[in-house]
Amino acid sequence: MTLSTHTYINQLAQHVGSEVTLKGWLYNMRSSGKIAFPQLRDGTGVVQCVVLKTAVPPETWDALKAMGQESALVISGTVRADERAPGGFEIDVNNAEVLQQVHDYPITPKEHGTEFLMDHRHLWLRSRRQHAVLKVRHTVVQAVRNFLDNDGFTLADSPIFTPAACEGTTTLFEVDYFEGEKAYLTQSGQLYNEATAAAFGKSYCFGPTFRAEKSKTRRHLTEFWMVEPEMAYATLEDVMQLAERFLSYIAARVLEDRSEELKVLERDTSKLEAIVAPFPRVHYDDAVKMLLEGHERGALEAKFEWGGDFGAPDETYISSQFDKPVMVHHYPAAIKAFYMARDQERPELALGVDVLAPEGYGEVIGGGERATSLEFLHEQIALHQLPQEAFEWYLDLRRYGSVPHGGFGMGIERCTAWMCGIEHIRETIPFPRMLYRIRP
Amino acid sequence: MTLSTHTYINQLAQHVGSEVTLKGWLYNMRSSGKIAFPQLRDGTGVVQCVVLKTAVPPETWDALKAMGQESALVISGTVRADERAPGGFEIDVNNAEVLQQVHDYPITPKEHGTEFLMDHRHLWLRSRRQHAVLKVRHTVVQAVRNFLDNDGFTLADSPIFTPAACEGTTTLFEVDYFEGEKAYLTQSGQLYNEATAAAFGKSYCFGPTFRAEKSKTRRHLTEFWMVEPEMAYATLEDVMQLAERFLSYIAARVLEDRSEELKVLERDTSKLEAIVAPFPRVHYDDAVKMLLEGHERGALEAKFEWGGDFGAPDETYISSQFDKPVMVHHYPAAIKAFYMARDQERPELALGVDVLAPEGYGEVIGGGERATSLEFLHEQIALHQLPQEAFEWYLDLRRYGSVPHGGFGMGIERCTAWMCGIEHIRETIPFPRMLYRIRP
Repeated sequence: MTLSTHTYINQLAQHVGSEVTLKGWLYNMRSSGKIAFPQLRDGTGVVQCVVLKTAVPPETWDALKAMGQESALVISGTVRADERAPGGFEIDVNNAEVLQQVHDYPITPKEHGTEFLMDHRHLWLRSRRQHAVLKVRHTVVQAVRNFLDNDGFTLADSPIFTPAACEGTTTLFEVDYFEGEKAYLTQSGQLYNEATAAAFGKSYCFGPTFRAEKSKTRRHLTEFWMVEPEMAYATLEDVMQLAERFLSYIAARVLEDRSEELKVLERDTSKLEAIVAPFPRVHYDDAVKMLLEGHERGALEAKFEWGGDFGAPDETYISSQFDKPVMVHHYPAAIKAFYMARDQERPELALGVDVLAPEGYGEVIGGGERATSLEFLHEQIALHQLPQEAFEWYLDLRRYGSVPHGGFGMGIERCTAWMCGIEHIRETIPFPRMLYRIRP
Repeated sequence: MTLSTHTYINQLAQHVGSEVTLKGWLYNMRSSGKIAFPQLRDGTGVVQCVVLKTAVPPETWDALKAMGQESALVISGTVRADERAPGGFEIDVNNAEVLQQVHDYPITPKEHGTEFLMDHRHLWLRSRRQHAVLKVRHTVVQAVRNFLDNDGFTLADSPIFTPAACEGTTTLFEVDYFEGEKAYLTQSGQLYNEATAAAFGKSYCFGPTFRAEKSKTRRHLTEFWMVEPEMAYATLEDVMQLAERFLSYIAARVLEDRSEELKVLERDTSKLEAIVAPFPRVHYDDAVKMLLEGHERGALEAKFEWGGDFGAPDETYISSQFDKPVMVHHYPAAIKAFYMARDQERPELALGVDVLAPEGYGEVIGGGERATSLEFLHEQIALHQLPQEAFEWYLDLRRYGSVPHGGFGMGIERCTAWMCGIEHIRETIPFPRMLYRIRP
């Protein structure tokens, strides 16, 4: 027996005037005497149904009237176009079956605390707002993959188990591998991407990454998804051009494919419409000047010093000067990763770029051009007291066909939060993992 | 300065008669006296270039003649169509720059041992065969996502960090979370998918999964990618229909998009052309009869007993009876997961299905219909001595709107090995992780 020969709510436009069978769950119900208006949700939408007491058998009427929220419900009826109805259609019901009567569904329209909702994440996902956020996340993921695939990038997933750290070891999760060996969960596919870019010209990895940070901010997850494209024969300029085309494409896709969800989220879409390449570019030196002016004007509490990394207030201040994402480039090498290429005229600067999103969403992309010289990388590895033996394979990439190359990383959840205009990143992944949360 | 305004080898058809700049690495070189034929690879293809000694400056000629394999090389020249040339084009070079002279590239056309190649995986990826395998993998991943996205599935990534096991605890990797808490790396998103299918109707997760199995077979990786679609209001029949449509689509996409790579791999494409729905369906009882006949005929060494799980020789024998993948269904419940729905007429059977690939590739898909009854699952959790408290959230899915539902899981690397017709799964992922291998 097959069950899936039913109609989904998002297909109703093709069935106006016809009889359909819908399968889903009770979203809400109004009734008065001899007429009931159950709202059915099926995961693709919500539709209002109209049941006349006289149109269905008495036991069906009684079962319908007794339903609580999230009761499992199969309905047959005729599709009627109705401009006043949310979604544009109503169902005139001629048959119904309640598969499961549900009472006391834990999540009600009243306000619940965050901890309660997080404990019930498996049910909270059915709520309209969470639904909208995760639909946007799906579109962001699709857009990322479509953009890179159409742009000639080859997917080359980097490993999750790694023997050594890409960016320091204090925030790594340790795993017992076999026979006492330790492995670490990846923080970035960066180094591996450099190998695959030399093989494929343009490559990307896209998977979960892990940070054992003891942070409880609204921007932190211990497990989050990251996409990292890498290009051989590319400079910082190429990386910046890729980043602005990439983000512009993602925003356009979200606007086009998720207009209904953006309405549910009450997103100011003019903010997304502004995300169009080219983006403003600000040299680190000029960003520092901007921050000092901000401090003088009283807009920033602390006085920023050249050489430091931006804090969240700094990022917000810089991005507030523009109506688009802004690309800050040429950071001090001392605050960037060891593998960054240097500005030849000012070797204290790294050829790195961070893309700062507007509206306080902070850094959504970080990347740059990588160093090509074997000798320089030898020095850097020693300087950072990294175990050279663990990087021998990486150094091979400079021994055998070293060329200018670069790329960036973008966190999917932070990008999704920005697209949705929501405050906390924890809602942008189905089952968030945080400092004190690995359940459900 | 931007570097990426060059032409890629797979775009040469658009530039016949024009001058282009190509950037890549030396793949191979023949030369004789006053003419050299460097073959350039750039990740999108390989093209033969023709350099006349008289057409370039003497120092360029000397640099070109000195190049070893994988030297970094930029070439400018005119594109000439030539039917005899591999790829159909040659480049008449009028300028060239050797960015890096490489000598003694470790991987030569001679035979290398597997361990050597695995130790040099970061370079081995540049080889034509590995290139072809990973291009097929990319297409498999694209096909999986396109199929599910177009079929109305919502991407809902399941977590990597989990508190409890989906299928036993002996093969779980343990992670130190925070403050002494332990987390385990996911083996399947199955249970989480059941929550998201109730939210979205149809959902899927697609990410890395982990098995701490001390196996060194050609079918095992400790880290591999798995896609798992799940449908609400679906039966075993729906799951089987989805599985056969899904695999047929993947095979068609590989045939269409990767014909060049399949040639490199010397794949018998008639095997892939046969992967067209519907697939034969075999009840477990009948599969057992088949195995007993095979034993009687001397084709199978061991005599199979009803109730057992199939070993690799059994799977190979069953699949060899058909020229397509075969779906074996209604397995004994005792050898399947606790959450499987039961055959109502023969409750000792689970409504599960395994899709066995031809040519000895074994089980590529496993899935089925899930149990809907809260009471039944309570019993099963007790019977399997699982900690009920850890499954309370999962049981909520049966308390609040329980409906028939089902889905399956497919391992990307095993599917890729099958599509490519290659023996060992270790070549189907960029950086394989196995019992004694987490490097490079």
